[in-house]
Amino acid sequence: MRDLTPETITQVFRGYFDDASDPRAREVLGALAQHLHAFVLETRLTHDEWRKGLELLGWAGRITTPERNEFVLFSDVLGVSSLVDMIHSTPAGTSSSVLGPFHVTGAPALANGGDLKGQFAGEVVLVRGQVRDASGRPVPRAAVNIWQTAPNGLYSSQDPDQDTYSFHGLLTADDDGHYAFTTVRPVPYQVPTDGPAGELLRASGRHAWRPSHLHFIVTADGFRTLVTEVFPDDDPYLDEDTVFGVRRDLVMRYVPQPAGSFPGGLALSGQVDGGYSSVDFDLILTAE
Amino acid sequence: MRDLTPETITQVFRGYFDDASDPRAREVLGALAQHLHAFVLETRLTHDEWRKGLELLGWAGRITTPERNEFVLFSDVLGVSSLVDMIHSTPAGTSSSVLGPFHVTGAPALANGGDLKGQFAGEVVLVRGQVRDASGRPVPRAAVNIWQTAPNGLYSSQDPDQDTYSFHGLLTADDDGHYAFTTVRPVPYQVPTDGPAGELLRASGRHAWRPSHLHFIVTADGFRTLVTEVFPDDDPYLDEDTVFGVRRDLVMRYVPQPAGSFPGGLALSGQVDGGYSSVDFDLILTAE
Repeated sequence: MRDLTPETITQVFRGYFDDASDPRAREVLGALAQHLHAFVLETRLTHDEWRKGLELLGWAGRITTPERNEFVLFSDVLGVSSLVDMIHSTPAGTSSSVLGPFHVTGAPALANGGDLKGQFAGEVVLVRGQVRDASGRPVPRAAVNIWQTAPNGLYSSQDPDQDTYSFHGLLTADDDGHYAFTTVRPVPYQVPTDGPAGELLRASGRHAWRPSHLHFIVTADGFRTLVTEVFPDDDPYLDEDTVFGVRRDLVMRYVPQPAGSFPGGLALSGQVDGGYSSVDFDLILTAE
Repeated sequence: MRDLTPETITQVFRGYFDDASDPRAREVLGALAQHLHAFVLETRLTHDEWRKGLELLGWAGRITTPERNEFVLFSDVLGVSSLVDMIHSTPAGTSSSVLGPFHVTGAPALANGGDLKGQFAGEVVLVRGQVRDASGRPVPRAAVNIWQTAPNGLYSSQDPDQDTYSFHGLLTADDDGHYAFTTVRPVPYQVPTDGPAGELLRASGRHAWRPSHLHFIVTADGFRTLVTEVFPDDDPYLDEDTVFGVRRDLVMRYVPQPAGSFPGGLALSGQVDGGYSSVDFDLILTAE
């Protein structure tokens, strides 16, 4: 160790592991060190840059709360979250997409066919679909957790004018896997740029925009939890999502519907009296 | 972007850069993303492991204070700090070594030849040396910032029984580059294991020990700042420092000296009346 060199440090690091420790922990930590070392070597990272990185991490720590996790946002804007999603998606199921830093646990129950938008005004959208397994069979009574921004582009946790669970709901699909709810059309928004992740975006000359989307977490016994999003096919930021969340199978058409038309399927809570759009988004789960 | 794959995400990430942004920022951020992506791909990092990593970062954020920086400790135990030190050391100068998470800025002045140990008892050590340039010429009047643990193995910031600047001093070498001070022999200690860096060490079955050492930051006009440490050659942890700080040129003999002997050179503040050890540690600076 006294003769440690840039070429041997990764091997010395791995040499410190106790063979009795968990093999997966050794694998992950060894690979983490190896790739961090390669990053430092390749860039010849300076002490000033190292200190800057530590400052950004410290800043992220100071502003992270249960409602805003800046480390998640770092992971998102670096593409790490999306990469984890992609490698654990299977072509047979709906693609995973980023959880994002704004999910609030404990959302209140929303009736199937119910209304998510509360008192908010905006372009009404009917979202509906079926939860199925990879072979096309309906999955009965899946739990579908939905959240989105208000029409001002802010999640409830970012907006003192919204309640905690504004635009958050947990519905249960029916025995045939069908779910539906009404809401207002989400809007594109910028991820928060007042913290260190914003500094990272500015340093690389990147914008902070995400295309508009609805978030979903779908759970059902015997299936892998699906964390995903649905995007409208006419969003201007579809091909430059700052957190790399868009997948082809998550891009859906918002179909204009005449006022008073009845979309069929589930009874709705009467939110489609004016003109509205409907979007069909089936959720395909894969076995655990 | 809708057809993003694990194989293309790094390229898409780099594609987001604005060519007008700082080229070095693009280089560093592009390499960071590339190596993080490679880490995720190689390990097939799971969502649970990703969440665990984010939890550890969040925990680090919550416990980081100006006196204890858990992110620095993460960097240290992963070998990242030492690697940055190594790639910016030159063979002509004294090796850099880790700053560590416990440096307190604003240390009080210590007279050259003065006493760092205050009222603390322990094996007295006389530390002395000369600050020189790479061609062997004395560097006059360098600022030498020294800090170490108390005999209980704790830095002042970890120990409610010590003042803020206990075992911290800032002395000025003389016109000939010589410096000296008396202290008590530092002891091996464990880095803090009550935070997420401790969890990382436990997960890999590693101990948390560092060999005993004195920290130095040496600054002089026209020279690169030297951050380093000196280790006694009989320390049991020399070859398994948990933060990878030991270098061959930083390992020195503590030479026993009879009571009352005068080591020559600078006048001391009378701290060597009993038996003591002396350690010679010259500090070789390289030009900016």
